[in-house]
Amino acid sequence: MTESAEQIRYRNLLLRIAYDGTDFYGWQIQPERATIQGTLAEVLEQICGEKVPVCGSGRTDAGVHAGGQAANIKTSSPIPCPNLVKAMNRLLPESIRILSAQAVREDFHARYHAQSKLYRYRIFRGEICPPWLSRYVLPYPYPLDEAAMERAAKYFEGTYDFRSFAAADRDEDNEEQATASDTAVQVEKQSSIRTVFSSVLSRQGVELVYNIEGNGFLHHMVRNIVGTLIDIGRGRTKVEAVPEILGARQRSAAGPTAPARGLHLVSVCYPDDIGVAE
Amino acid sequence: MTESAEQIRYRNLLLRIAYDGTDFYGWQIQPERATIQGTLAEVLEQICGEKVPVCGSGRTDAGVHAGGQAANIKTSSPIPCPNLVKAMNRLLPESIRILSAQAVREDFHARYHAQSKLYRYRIFRGEICPPWLSRYVLPYPYPLDEAAMERAAKYFEGTYDFRSFAAADRDEDNEEQATASDTAVQVEKQSSIRTVFSSVLSRQGVELVYNIEGNGFLHHMVRNIVGTLIDIGRGRTKVEAVPEILGARQRSAAGPTAPARGLHLVSVCYPDDIGVAE
Repeated sequence: MTESAEQIRYRNLLLRIAYDGTDFYGWQIQPERATIQGTLAEVLEQICGEKVPVCGSGRTDAGVHAGGQAANIKTSSPIPCPNLVKAMNRLLPESIRILSAQAVREDFHARYHAQSKLYRYRIFRGEICPPWLSRYVLPYPYPLDEAAMERAAKYFEGTYDFRSFAAADRDEDNEEQATASDTAVQVEKQSSIRTVFSSVLSRQGVELVYNIEGNGFLHHMVRNIVGTLIDIGRGRTKVEAVPEILGARQRSAAGPTAPARGLHLVSVCYPDDIGVAE
Repeated sequence: MTESAEQIRYRNLLLRIAYDGTDFYGWQIQPERATIQGTLAEVLEQICGEKVPVCGSGRTDAGVHAGGQAANIKTSSPIPCPNLVKAMNRLLPESIRILSAQAVREDFHARYHAQSKLYRYRIFRGEICPPWLSRYVLPYPYPLDEAAMERAAKYFEGTYDFRSFAAADRDEDNEEQATASDTAVQVEKQSSIRTVFSSVLSRQGVELVYNIEGNGFLHHMVRNIVGTLIDIGRGRTKVEAVPEILGARQRSAAGPTAPARGLHLVSVCYPDDIGVAE
């Protein structure tokens, strides 16, 4: 294929991003408010000299953190990836860091091609939470039956309709319109059926740490599962009630939404073959 | 001694305090500005129903953190110590935590009776500093001769006139007027002579950690020592120059002041016999 001189070549780049969500109104761009996506877009426009859309693997809510969020951007700028990382980190606030940039296939989409995501929720069990942890953990110094919570966590592994654990408003993965390249996987994601590969709660020192990995998550799903696990730890809900709660398919069956600050998007996995040479 | 009914009994209480200094204008109370001492005084007035002076072991600057600051307060409130801790933590922002409260002798003074203080300075050596560490470390990804810095750190152990490492304005331990109970130790503290018991820099994972323990510190002393150690790591100053810099007794001989955010007041030590039964 020949290209005319006017034809602009757009590169598709995958960014890995870490952020402290405390001082942002979540991932998604909003007018007049500091958001992760909006801050990234501003900095990219400065560097690339053009509007650069930022397409995340999914939204995170206000106060939720990320150690490994992923997003793809399309730009005509020829800036090499290592230089882009440095330039972005120079301009971004320290609460957002670009960990890496990688050239990927033209059709790569950070949301549609995500194979799995790992979320972590941290509960601080000590009497007094140190100030340097309070943005990143839920302090919960009250009695909890942690063994019951560990058993209950295993019930979430498998393929289920997670509607009981979804926010009533929207679900995280349904925020965008279906595209022409819809596949069976994407159609499935528009339902509230998700597959959880691993759901493990364990004591790590003074923290109770919950790791959940799945092929996608509904809006508030992890926080609602954690709220339900805490109810189980308090003896308000029985371990064996989890299958019933899942079966009820209504939000009122499950526990409350745990606070945002304990939640971390740890990583997003993609197929091995997405990269391209530059 | 008999007490008249009108005579109020004041208790002297030692508080141990942790804080994230990022959002405060330092320890010392100032009008119209959020400070650690001012925030503690406000909360104590609410709980005790009277003005309660808060006397710290020493000031910390804006942006400096504490894992174990100490202060004594005098109050006529009969509130038991464990209840005071809980009540204060309920009212304080999460960036300040009371770790403990203990009844101490009437004449105990958090500053005059401090035997030693341990400060820590954290330098992050990785390429990209995670957002959740950036308030607590100095990110320094550039080359440093860490072995030279380790050797240089040992030169600060001993009793010296640290004037070369003191801010020109004031020194931390001289902020208050001498009292009638002046002792030789207090008089010594009004000079710029201090004893450093231990001064050790070591690599701990991705961080370069500097611990310095001494009987007192001049204003900016730790940050000026760290700035000098970084100059040595960069090859700007020789290891062997440290004794000369100490001997010069002027601020211009030493390196720049390292940023506040990497500095932590870890602990303050007092004699064993300060406590009283209640």
